[in-house]
Amino acid sequence: MTNSLANAIHFAHENRARFLDELGELIAIPSISADSTHTPDIKRAAEWLANKLKSLGFEKIQIMDTGGHPVVFGENMQAGKDAPTMIVYGHYDVQPADPLDLWDSPPFAATIKDDLLFARGATDMKGQVLASFAAVEAALQTGAMPVNVKYLLEGEEETGSPTLGTFIEANKELFAADFALNPDAGMLSPSQPSITYALRGLAYFEVNLTGPSHDLHSGQFGGTVRNPANELASLIGGMHDDKGRITLPGFYDKVRELDAQEREEMAKLPEGDGFYKAHTGVSVLWGEEGYSAVERASGRPTLDVNGMLSGYIGEGAKTVLPAKAMAKISCRLVADQHPKEVEAQLNEYIAARIHPSMDWSVKMLSSDVASISARESKEIQAMSAALQEVFDAPVLFKREGGTIPVVGYMQDKLGVESVLTGFGLPEDRMHSPNERLHLPTWEKGIDAMIHFIFNLGK
Amino acid sequence: MTNSLANAIHFAHENRARFLDELGELIAIPSISADSTHTPDIKRAAEWLANKLKSLGFEKIQIMDTGGHPVVFGENMQAGKDAPTMIVYGHYDVQPADPLDLWDSPPFAATIKDDLLFARGATDMKGQVLASFAAVEAALQTGAMPVNVKYLLEGEEETGSPTLGTFIEANKELFAADFALNPDAGMLSPSQPSITYALRGLAYFEVNLTGPSHDLHSGQFGGTVRNPANELASLIGGMHDDKGRITLPGFYDKVRELDAQEREEMAKLPEGDGFYKAHTGVSVLWGEEGYSAVERASGRPTLDVNGMLSGYIGEGAKTVLPAKAMAKISCRLVADQHPKEVEAQLNEYIAARIHPSMDWSVKMLSSDVASISARESKEIQAMSAALQEVFDAPVLFKREGGTIPVVGYMQDKLGVESVLTGFGLPEDRMHSPNERLHLPTWEKGIDAMIHFIFNLGK
Repeated sequence: MTNSLANAIHFAHENRARFLDELGELIAIPSISADSTHTPDIKRAAEWLANKLKSLGFEKIQIMDTGGHPVVFGENMQAGKDAPTMIVYGHYDVQPADPLDLWDSPPFAATIKDDLLFARGATDMKGQVLASFAAVEAALQTGAMPVNVKYLLEGEEETGSPTLGTFIEANKELFAADFALNPDAGMLSPSQPSITYALRGLAYFEVNLTGPSHDLHSGQFGGTVRNPANELASLIGGMHDDKGRITLPGFYDKVRELDAQEREEMAKLPEGDGFYKAHTGVSVLWGEEGYSAVERASGRPTLDVNGMLSGYIGEGAKTVLPAKAMAKISCRLVADQHPKEVEAQLNEYIAARIHPSMDWSVKMLSSDVASISARESKEIQAMSAALQEVFDAPVLFKREGGTIPVVGYMQDKLGVESVLTGFGLPEDRMHSPNERLHLPTWEKGIDAMIHFIFNLGK
Repeated sequence: MTNSLANAIHFAHENRARFLDELGELIAIPSISADSTHTPDIKRAAEWLANKLKSLGFEKIQIMDTGGHPVVFGENMQAGKDAPTMIVYGHYDVQPADPLDLWDSPPFAATIKDDLLFARGATDMKGQVLASFAAVEAALQTGAMPVNVKYLLEGEEETGSPTLGTFIEANKELFAADFALNPDAGMLSPSQPSITYALRGLAYFEVNLTGPSHDLHSGQFGGTVRNPANELASLIGGMHDDKGRITLPGFYDKVRELDAQEREEMAKLPEGDGFYKAHTGVSVLWGEEGYSAVERASGRPTLDVNGMLSGYIGEGAKTVLPAKAMAKISCRLVADQHPKEVEAQLNEYIAARIHPSMDWSVKMLSSDVASISARESKEIQAMSAALQEVFDAPVLFKREGGTIPVVGYMQDKLGVESVLTGFGLPEDRMHSPNERLHLPTWEKGIDAMIHFIFNLGK
């Protein structure tokens, strides 16, 4: 270990309590991007980050208008012209906290119990962003920082980053870098470091059906009109066949199949059926026939209802035929599917089946293409060595089932590959009540990012 | 016209403005039975009715504890032992007013515009109850009242009268009568009086599915577990075949078919396809193949979703796999179906199809058997003559698609037939926003009930 690296690691260990306090400050700002009543909190979170970057010695700090929620930018170029430049991506927005009654502690107050910190955004991804701040701070204070650093911190990841692609394109020079670091992916377990090489895409729709002009008395009119809730249920019910395959016309036409070698590697991953049962609480798994659970969760496309609403949902019995029904339906996509094509397939499916009395609409709320990245770059190898050193275990390369829109934008707009890692765990309940962060893994993550930075200078 | 009848009609006409003011007072009490936060309003409405009966000279007035919402009772026996006794049924509870944003005026303030009075409960059935009060008051003030009158006014009709059957059975002597008058049925149009001879029954269920132990990230776990919302949609989608018939096992086994003569009479009713299109606002009707719309709406059983909820229904896109899904599903039944048997059929259907990872439950929230009544009794003929006189048109005998639980109880528990009539119209938006009462029809209804009372004395 070089002196600089050792000093940086020492600094990080000495300052752990402060890093944790700072995470608590950021968590206390309920920066929910999906809910416009929280727009002032989004602004507060952006200001908090800008101030923090300033205190770390960053320059050109800006809270940039994107048309949506702002991007926070800052750069520290003290490594000099000959050193590589890394752009670190993060998001400071979080998912809504509801259903609130299922939380055991207030979602926007960092609550530590044993090794766990409970809060919305603890792991996804305020904890990851501040881990990277800690590593950068530790490396900077040694005076031997081997890499220039830019930060691009967005506030719309949880709503699908609707403005980010355009925004990155419009600010290419400011964001220019040699590669991107993206700590929004996770680990398989506290002892198993990993690097993600493929991400799924997303096509997220809201489908609305309107039948009668107003809610009807089910006694008076039951049997005469098509009920939009029954019709919507019927449409959704038909979107899978009895083998768990999606029936939208042409849905699988462009799906890039998993190759034999890849499936062999995936079979070695620790994520067997037991893993998925344990983390979801179900006794019997479900999915497309012919694929293992881990293949289905990361290498195959899906279609799921995310939300559904019609008619009377209050207490007791209201004998009403609802005039309207709504479902939020999303597909996770794999290379080489395109959200726009899936949108057309969904429209074609509905148009062919729906009862002619219905007015209907499909609105795409969010979309991202899937991505697959190279595994042999210098930066990915630097991260792999860092993880192996800190976690003392061989690094697994894996696919991730989620969507990280910015990975595609970095590639398309800036021409840079992303190093995807992160220190969230499957049991962290991302997007769910009682989201949590495993603190020992988080602390090792800071160390690993310090190793990564100094590996880049080798 | 006898002097007494003429005097009573004159009295009713002179007092119309007061009758309307009293209706406004009762409407202003939001007596929503389905929502327990309105229990104090239920009590206020009961007290208002008890006071009103007292002012009409009724005796033995009681607000009776039923175990649920109270029954208001009162009797006026001044016609004497040799005169017939009629028990008038009504309900003073109303449906919830939501969705509130679709109302053009406050739901609990009687708002008159031209010939229409807008308010929740205006037509269903505070308006009908007060029309009967007006007729009874008018007959009583002549001093020649030919019939004894009892009132049984319940507060749970809109939640399926869960305690009424037991309660009537427990108070047989108090409620003893020769026949019942029930003005909770409607008219076909302002110029077409009618008497209802058959009612549909109801079996109303809440179905709950639980899959994962908590809401899941759709990227991380999409493709590995059965989504309860998709599963519920699939179950509901399968509950009708492509001929619009219900697929619950054995559902049609006990259905009493419409006979040829009945279908011939129903074909003469003014309720053609145009009627149903106009009153529902749909361009194309839907339902069981082989039956006309009016047959389907009154003489055939149905299955409809009344409410449906799962996952995230707020603004924007939340990429969650919901842990739970709920649907309120109800069947309108015809003779000789039984709600308990339909409950068993629904359970059997779900058990046979549902994915084994689901915990599920079916709770019957409300149930009533269907009824068919004789058309040739003295009382029904008295009503028929009264309606013909006032509306100057032949009376149609018809089936009603809705459920009036008390009709079955009157027959089973008290051994009395009901005369079913009423002055609500199809376009009155019962159970919907902007419920309304057509005032000219309401005023004729008061006159018709006065004629009915004096016809009984002939």
